[in-house]
Amino acid sequence: MPKSNSIKNILQSGRLEFFLEAHNALSARIVEEAGFSGIWASGLTSSASLGLRDCNEASWTQTLDILEFMSDHTSIPILFDGDSGFGNFNNVRRLVKKLEQRQIAGVCLEDKEYPKKNSFIASEGQALISAGEFASKIKAVKDTQIDPHFCVVARTEALITGNDINEALDRCYMYHQAGADAVLIHSKKKTADEIISFTRQWNNLCPVVIVPTTYDKTPISAFEEANISLVLWANHMLRASIEGMKKVAASIFAHKTPIAADNMIAPLEEIFRLQNVSELEEAEHIYYSYAKDIDFLKAQRAA
Amino acid sequence: MPKSNSIKNILQSGRLEFFLEAHNALSARIVEEAGFSGIWASGLTSSASLGLRDCNEASWTQTLDILEFMSDHTSIPILFDGDSGFGNFNNVRRLVKKLEQRQIAGVCLEDKEYPKKNSFIASEGQALISAGEFASKIKAVKDTQIDPHFCVVARTEALITGNDINEALDRCYMYHQAGADAVLIHSKKKTADEIISFTRQWNNLCPVVIVPTTYDKTPISAFEEANISLVLWANHMLRASIEGMKKVAASIFAHKTPIAADNMIAPLEEIFRLQNVSELEEAEHIYYSYAKDIDFLKAQRAA
Amino acid sequence: MPKSNSIKNILQSGRLEFFLEAHNALSARIVEEAGFSGIWASGLTSSASLGLRDCNEASWTQTLDILEFMSDHTSIPILFDGDSGFGNFNNVRRLVKKLEQRQIAGVCLEDKEYPKKNSFIASEGQALISAGEFASKIKAVKDTQIDPHFCVVARTEALITGNDINEALDRCYMYHQAGADAVLIHSKKKTADEIISFTRQWNNLCPVVIVPTTYDKTPISAFEEANISLVLWANHMLRASIEGMKKVAASIFAHKTPIAADNMIAPLEEIFRLQNVSELEEAEHIYYSYAKDIDFLKAQRAA
Amino acid sequence: MPKSNSIKNILQSGRLEFFLEAHNALSARIVEEAGFSGIWASGLTSSASLGLRDCNEASWTQTLDILEFMSDHTSIPILFDGDSGFGNFNNVRRLVKKLEQRQIAGVCLEDKEYPKKNSFIASEGQALISAGEFASKIKAVKDTQIDPHFCVVARTEALITGNDINEALDRCYMYHQAGADAVLIHSKKKTADEIISFTRQWNNLCPVVIVPTTYDKTPISAFEEANISLVLWANHMLRASIEGMKKVAASIFAHKTPIAADNMIAPLEEIFRLQNVSELEEAEHIYYSYAKDIDFLKAQRAA
Repeated sequence: MPKSNSIKNILQSGRLEFFLEAHNALSARIVEEAGFSGIWASGLTSSASLGLRDCNEASWTQTLDILEFMSDHTSIPILFDGDSGFGNFNNVRRLVKKLEQRQIAGVCLEDKEYPKKNSFIASEGQALISAGEFASKIKAVKDTQIDPHFCVVARTEALITGNDINEALDRCYMYHQAGADAVLIHSKKKTADEIISFTRQWNNLCPVVIVPTTYDKTPISAFEEANISLVLWANHMLRASIEGMKKVAASIFAHKTPIAADNMIAPLEEIFRLQNVSELEEAEHIYYSYAKDIDFLKAQRAA
Repeated sequence: MPKSNSIKNILQSGRLEFFLEAHNALSARIVEEAGFSGIWASGLTSSASLGLRDCNEASWTQTLDILEFMSDHTSIPILFDGDSGFGNFNNVRRLVKKLEQRQIAGVCLEDKEYPKKNSFIASEGQALISAGEFASKIKAVKDTQIDPHFCVVARTEALITGNDINEALDRCYMYHQAGADAVLIHSKKKTADEIISFTRQWNNLCPVVIVPTTYDKTPISAFEEANISLVLWANHMLRASIEGMKKVAASIFAHKTPIAADNMIAPLEEIFRLQNVSELEEAEHIYYSYAKDIDFLKAQRAA
Repeated sequence: MPKSNSIKNILQSGRLEFFLEAHNALSARIVEEAGFSGIWASGLTSSASLGLRDCNEASWTQTLDILEFMSDHTSIPILFDGDSGFGNFNNVRRLVKKLEQRQIAGVCLEDKEYPKKNSFIASEGQALISAGEFASKIKAVKDTQIDPHFCVVARTEALITGNDINEALDRCYMYHQAGADAVLIHSKKKTADEIISFTRQWNNLCPVVIVPTTYDKTPISAFEEANISLVLWANHMLRASIEGMKKVAASIFAHKTPIAADNMIAPLEEIFRLQNVSELEEAEHIYYSYAKDIDFLKAQRAA
Repeated sequence: MPKSNSIKNILQSGRLEFFLEAHNALSARIVEEAGFSGIWASGLTSSASLGLRDCNEASWTQTLDILEFMSDHTSIPILFDGDSGFGNFNNVRRLVKKLEQRQIAGVCLEDKEYPKKNSFIASEGQALISAGEFASKIKAVKDTQIDPHFCVVARTEALITGNDINEALDRCYMYHQAGADAVLIHSKKKTADEIISFTRQWNNLCPVVIVPTTYDKTPISAFEEANISLVLWANHMLRASIEGMKKVAASIFAHKTPIAADNMIAPLEEIFRLQNVSELEEAEHIYYSYAKDIDFLKAQRAA
């Protein structure tokens, strides 16, 4: 089953599912090994790993390069945070071709301008494009994709930019009409109230995705009751790695040796396991033996 | 003072210094903030972060792309793990030009074949090239560099590949003659015995660099007594991030929420701080005001 | 029919076929429009277009980026000049995965060391690897490819490096055993004598490919009689572009205007046609109309 | 003298100068060898060489990669066609850093939206941004550049988008105030009338650059009388290469051999000369001898 197939199944399962963020191939592999059914390839965290800010400072092809490594080393579906699509409908068309070549299962696009700006930072420089212009990007995905299971999630930033729930509902309705496989309603409130209010009126028109970064204390049961399909834990692997690295760096610096940090770091062998070094060693055995056999045969033939 | 200047000073300071590994811009920034005087841009860990193995599975330009991000977001010198130089003397010449353009302070090259293989994994497929061929790579660095302070560290894998200390000494002598700014003597033993034995006979001919990954329990004073100039803690940021991410992923998967992992992850604001979001906000203020002023002026002129 | 399918058919057609060189997407498109059944993605010419020499100065992923553009903008099969495979069997495995993702139909590998050196320049620095080591690379392609039609052409440089026809035959036999879909026998002689001599003794064991760069005055009928399957005109698009650009640059420089060069340059509209600008204009019409309709609908709903 | 220094001198020389377009390192080298004092790194032609359209289908870093090769292989200044700056003032800041690292002498930015659209194709989808927003991008270049000689050319598309000369003058005045080192007034008319009219009123406030693609029959003396500083022949190398390649491809296809195209293609040796193969051969001699000497010395020491 292709990865895209499974993302469609997940969205339509009727069960609440959880994707965890990854920002490179290694974190993606850890997400898969932990048991998650999918990966959120976050723009915020991949930018941060490059030292960049979440406002399209990285070019879209630099982001694509990260995605390709992530996809090559995992088997669960990746939902790509495609920001506002890196331009207009035409840029979106080119993006979709590149994503499908790299077996990315779906893309999430948001209705903000290009360059976009992270939803949790100051509101200056955050503006929505017209619902029509954004709907045409959604349509561009659906018209371009070759794999029928490739998914597009339409994310509205209506609430983030200070608009009301009616605006969010109207926009999501338009995006659904344009072909969106799911809608993502984003909020930066400390509680899930506006999200719950949205889902009540949305009435399950199509699957709903949420990103409870600020309202992460809401009990999961509330999301289930609201008929939400997918929760994205959108930045937690990066935050775990920052915490881990800062503590270890401080310890090594203080003690001039990593001894005191020993229980905070994975053993060297764990790197090798995550890299699948054992497969290389098996392959070396096969190909080096094969080379010797051929050289022996050739020498015999010559004699 | 350019970054290259400071790496030369560090190597020749007569004091034992410590560089910590980084594998992307974010980890590099954390290393700098922790107080270290330099960064070890490891081939093992940058490969692992891409999901790849440490045997030149990543192309040299993919590695260069990572380096560029690291250099752009730090001010301390970066010593680049250039493996065996990605080919012959000519590939090394091209590499040095690219490193200098990106303000990398120095490169460490090792005397193994291309593709190289990580020193800590099975010995099949690990072979040294001739001392002469490797010395010509060192000479190629010195002939090519424009900045007189750019450093090349010549790393011998003699002990790793089962040769004796005499071979290591002979090789390091040749590399020093060819212009190496320092030599790196690598060992995979659990103790520092062979390293100490080497340094005793080396007699401080030029600065010595070590990578005590396997003999990390050796007291630092032993390295100081041996007149070692630089210790590379070569993979500890990646190992910290793996440990952190695995724990957090497991917790979120088990609880279906990150609540229980709260003390294991940095706050969201810490990402923004590391990205220097505040600089962006100040710049927005300046440039948006400027734009408004100009538009006002233009309207006035027209009126 | 996938591109790979058609390359297999071409090699096994029993007819002499011709592929023409391309070094970027534009030249590839011109080759296709001229009527050729396939494209030779040359290492010499793609390097030269980057200002680099044909000795693996470009990284393998830089070459891959060029290939991806070529593949995206053509529908005939591309045979990729994979030099000596950019390392050992393991580098070849990774290469094949990347080629298949980009719909490249086949790869040609040669039995020289890495870095390879162009066959027509001085012989210093040109050496063969053992037949066994090279056969293991061929086997690595066949073991790795997912698409059963993906082709590997095994190129022997035996004659180029001063070995005799027996060595060439022995090597090709081993490569055929290892799974090669065709063999390429390369020569830098002014006549086709050694090629004809090879094919006589090869006796059609598997399809034969040639590159008559130096013996380009040989009548085609001689190749047909020798049962050769495929001729690669390996560098002629680049040579055409150099000739054209030098003449036009000289004319514009002399006259300080392009007027005198008018009949040596394609009209501006020809660039637009080759870029398929008309498709963009049609798409703009569709998507801009769609956006307006949706915005109108939304406004109605609100009213 | 750095390349940036010379571009400033050229703009302020009081003489009419000419830059010729290049789209890759090879064409750039041909432009330099022909005697031109600078290179126009065109967005239209570099896009076309990738098979893409001139509406930011290539990412800005893909364009940067092409530029880096061009800069590495030429010594005259390169003026980069930076389209509308690939986003807002912040994207421009990042661009300038990357250009300076690669020794690009200057950037030309235009006052259209992102994604921009080629000026000579249908006018739908062509819109100016406000003068203030664009002036803030010009200011961002000047605030960011480290090298004081790095130049920014402010290009107004006022006439292209149907505005009048007053609008063009007002905008250029604002851009000059914001720090532009020169202004580029673009026209798609068949005659130079509107350009001449502009320059008369501009009154030499700062250097003027033009792109006489459509009005290429205007005598050069007219441009000199109008006090124009720099003419960009903006796409002629690509058009020369298309013409050359189409003819040669057709000839080889018709005759099944390149014999009849012999006088339309450069000799193979010309590729090698442009690649500077002779420098490699000299270097091989030096480094291979050096390697042998060292190996001999080491063997002696051991004995």
